[in-house]
Amino acid sequence: MAAEASLQNPLKLGSKIVAVGRNYVEHAKELGNAVPKEPVLFLKPTSSYLENGGTIEVPHPLNSLHHEVELAVVIGQKARDVPINTAMDYVGGYALALDMTAREIQSVAKSAGLPWTVAKGQDTFTPISSVLPKSMVPDPDNLELWLKVDGEIRQKGSTKDMIFKIPYLISHISSLMTLFEGDVILTGTPQGVGPVAVGQKITAGITGLVDVHFDVGRRQKPGSS
Amino acid sequence: MAAEASLQNPLKLGSKIVAVGRNYVEHAKELGNAVPKEPVLFLKPTSSYLENGGTIEVPHPLNSLHHEVELAVVIGQKARDVPINTAMDYVGGYALALDMTAREIQSVAKSAGLPWTVAKGQDTFTPISSVLPKSMVPDPDNLELWLKVDGEIRQKGSTKDMIFKIPYLISHISSLMTLFEGDVILTGTPQGVGPVAVGQKITAGITGLVDVHFDVGRRQKPGSS
Ligand SMILES: [Mg+2]
Ligand SMILES: [Mg+2]
Ligand SMILES: [Mg+2]
Repeated sequence: MAAEASLQNPLKLGSKIVAVGRNYVEHAKELGNAVPKEPVLFLKPTSSYLENGGTIEVPHPLNSLHHEVELAVVIGQKARDVPINTAMDYVGGYALALDMTAREIQSVAKSAGLPWTVAKGQDTFTPISSVLPKSMVPDPDNLELWLKVDGEIRQKGSTKDMIFKIPYLISHISSLMTLFEGDVILTGTPQGVGPVAVGQKITAGITGLVDVHFDVGRRQKPGSS
Repeated sequence: MAAEASLQNPLKLGSKIVAVGRNYVEHAKELGNAVPKEPVLFLKPTSSYLENGGTIEVPHPLNSLHHEVELAVVIGQKARDVPINTAMDYVGGYALALDMTAREIQSVAKSAGLPWTVAKGQDTFTPISSVLPKSMVPDPDNLELWLKVDGEIRQKGSTKDMIFKIPYLISHISSLMTLFEGDVILTGTPQGVGPVAVGQKITAGITGLVDVHFDVGRRQKPGSS
């Protein structure tokens, strides 16, 4: 899209990704989790971003990762203790992101009461589209998110089914930590998560607004073959 | 220190803090945790930094946080898949940091298999000294770390008792995620962690190299009194 190509990359300004877990009722259920009373929050490092067209790398000894398609909210200005009723003023844009997850590693971590960093934070684990300016997204609470693996639909959901809506998330997160320009909130995934294996292809998008494609490959380390 | 005052702040370049849990045997034991076979890693956001002399803010409804004194390793250049034997080339400097922890929130999260982000990642939860250039720290594996509350010693330990040493940590973390200039590794805390309450003062340091002081106050939110 010409409009996108002319944008600078706001994500390069950011220093954190705050991800929300279990923000769609049907997804919480499919993983056997309770629907949360307050948002489940975790951090992903910005080193995990992968630009559209790139290759998601599955680390040894895994053969697959789980895909989670999510609406990314890109912060447009410094936000601290923002009330719900002005929270949307702090949005700079939106993107389509995948919260790639090593589910086996996450399951072991959850059982042991340990953080999800290794399961969620590795390089290429946050594939993301270019940023859509806010003006292109008049109704962020009514977007259709979809994801296909090798052309077969796996996830389709609407942001209208989010448990905690965008203004609440910005207000809540900004009461805990200052958000800066370019920081990203990943707003959670609708149902249909599942494995995508080495050699498969992912396409995903926000209907009518943006779509992305990624290959899934094996992570190569120096000295390995 | 004149040498420090003339330095630019390398931490402003960084985009992440990778923290290591349970990296001292005696500390793992005091919290009733197993000694880990590989490093326990979690992320803190750079928005949680607090400069020397600042006030650590205890959020409602808590009255105290736990102090964890730690050696911070500041990355000097981009590091990915770094072997152990060259890992020290990627160190730019060191600092003394506190990994402030809302232990009650962390305990609930651990029991529920949830991330530690709210317990560890709030603004002011990573008080940190100025950065000591690497040349000032010839033997990082033999530094004495100490912490006092209201002048009374609470933590004293040596980095020689770290389970996973600095070169191993850099190598291991860089095999999971790219480290960039200014990123920080918090290397874990020795035994003696405990609560510090609103109104108390913390002093801490690396013996012979640097010391810091922080007040502990109540977090004020707009509209609260
Ligand atoms: Mg997710
Ligand atoms: Mg971060
Ligand atoms: Mg710690």
